[in-house]
Amino acid sequence: MTIDLYWGSGSPYSWRVQLALEYKGLRYESHLLQFSKQEHKAPLLLRMNPRGRVPVLKDGDYVVFESLSILAYLDRKYPEPPLFGRNPEEAAIVMRVISEYQAYVENHLLQIVYAVFFENMDERLEEVTKAIHAVASEARTIEGRLSKSDWLVGDLPSAADFVVFPGIMLLLRAMEKREAGDLRSRFLPLETTHPAIARWIARVEALPGYARTFPPHWRDGPARG
Amino acid sequence: MTIDLYWGSGSPYSWRVQLALEYKGLRYESHLLQFSKQEHKAPLLLRMNPRGRVPVLKDGDYVVFESLSILAYLDRKYPEPPLFGRNPEEAAIVMRVISEYQAYVENHLLQIVYAVFFENMDERLEEVTKAIHAVASEARTIEGRLSKSDWLVGDLPSAADFVVFPGIMLLLRAMEKREAGDLRSRFLPLETTHPAIARWIARVEALPGYARTFPPHWRDGPARG
Repeated sequence: MTIDLYWGSGSPYSWRVQLALEYKGLRYESHLLQFSKQEHKAPLLLRMNPRGRVPVLKDGDYVVFESLSILAYLDRKYPEPPLFGRNPEEAAIVMRVISEYQAYVENHLLQIVYAVFFENMDERLEEVTKAIHAVASEARTIEGRLSKSDWLVGDLPSAADFVVFPGIMLLLRAMEKREAGDLRSRFLPLETTHPAIARWIARVEALPGYARTFPPHWRDGPARG
Repeated sequence: MTIDLYWGSGSPYSWRVQLALEYKGLRYESHLLQFSKQEHKAPLLLRMNPRGRVPVLKDGDYVVFESLSILAYLDRKYPEPPLFGRNPEEAAIVMRVISEYQAYVENHLLQIVYAVFFENMDERLEEVTKAIHAVASEARTIEGRLSKSDWLVGDLPSAADFVVFPGIMLLLRAMEKREAGDLRSRFLPLETTHPAIARWIARVEALPGYARTFPPHWRDGPARG
């Protein structure tokens, strides 16, 4: 059977799945869709996911979408190495870190990123300020966790790392933009502001196959949006 | 080992876990916390979950929080009957329905509920109107799904049902309030607007132990907040 992955460059949700596929050492056909050409809304894609969102994974005839759902599928279908822990207690912590990221970080983080990329930070100052406080506070929690262990849960990578990592990379990329202004100094240089997170990023970057997962349009240079 | 559940009346997140515990036929000590007395912020609770949020589950010495994390734990620890499907494909669909609910329904639904309960619908009209359109559209999708099968995924209850059900019940309770105004007719009577969802609610209500999960302060009568 062939695994086909339909994804978009810079989509943090796509990146999660790519990291998981590489970590499990699975071979897959990579189909990079151009958002600018609306390729994710093409008929083939809409037949697979009526919402027209990526990532979409096809394993033989089986189609699955929504990044967490794809991770859950891959882990049940190809159990080694596990993404969701080796026992009930680990499984719970992996899911807890993911749930906490989704509930308390993700929306705030995306608000900051959008405000920087779409250059409307001033209009949305109150909202963005609130988001910055929330993200900074959760970043401290993550920093604390990573100062005690190499990975977000236990001694090995898990779905928790692969869910959180692309979001943090997106935030850091936004911080590189001139429009980030004073915000930059809250997060950069990361080695100084959050040294344990910086070391963890280096660890993820050293995983086999990582280079294949890196957003192609990010390779061209610093953030332009 | 004893399972202890710390929960709050009307918390949809607590309700998910109660439904799962009853479905698995697990015995547990029920600790109902009074939000009005800030019991969820008491030292014992903050030691277990520094965020001071419920539900919190303690299984022997093991403490777990965040509702999805608790469901994942229970399913790995006490596998029968399964909450997350019997095979990789089912597991993926369960997680997909949960992810879609969280990504496209939950925040909008809570916005509507808060606007009704806190009686500031007029101030937040634009936001609430957007939320209503989103929830109505997703409700049609759920209605379509339930018109084809008894449960959200396949022939048996799953974590998807237990995650979505409390949210829908909360929305319906808000719709009963006078402050819901014209909104009411979009959703009520449910038997007319969404007959498959109405039948599904009756199915959940008929599950063994359901009565024990019903929010105690809802028993006193129609919604007051």
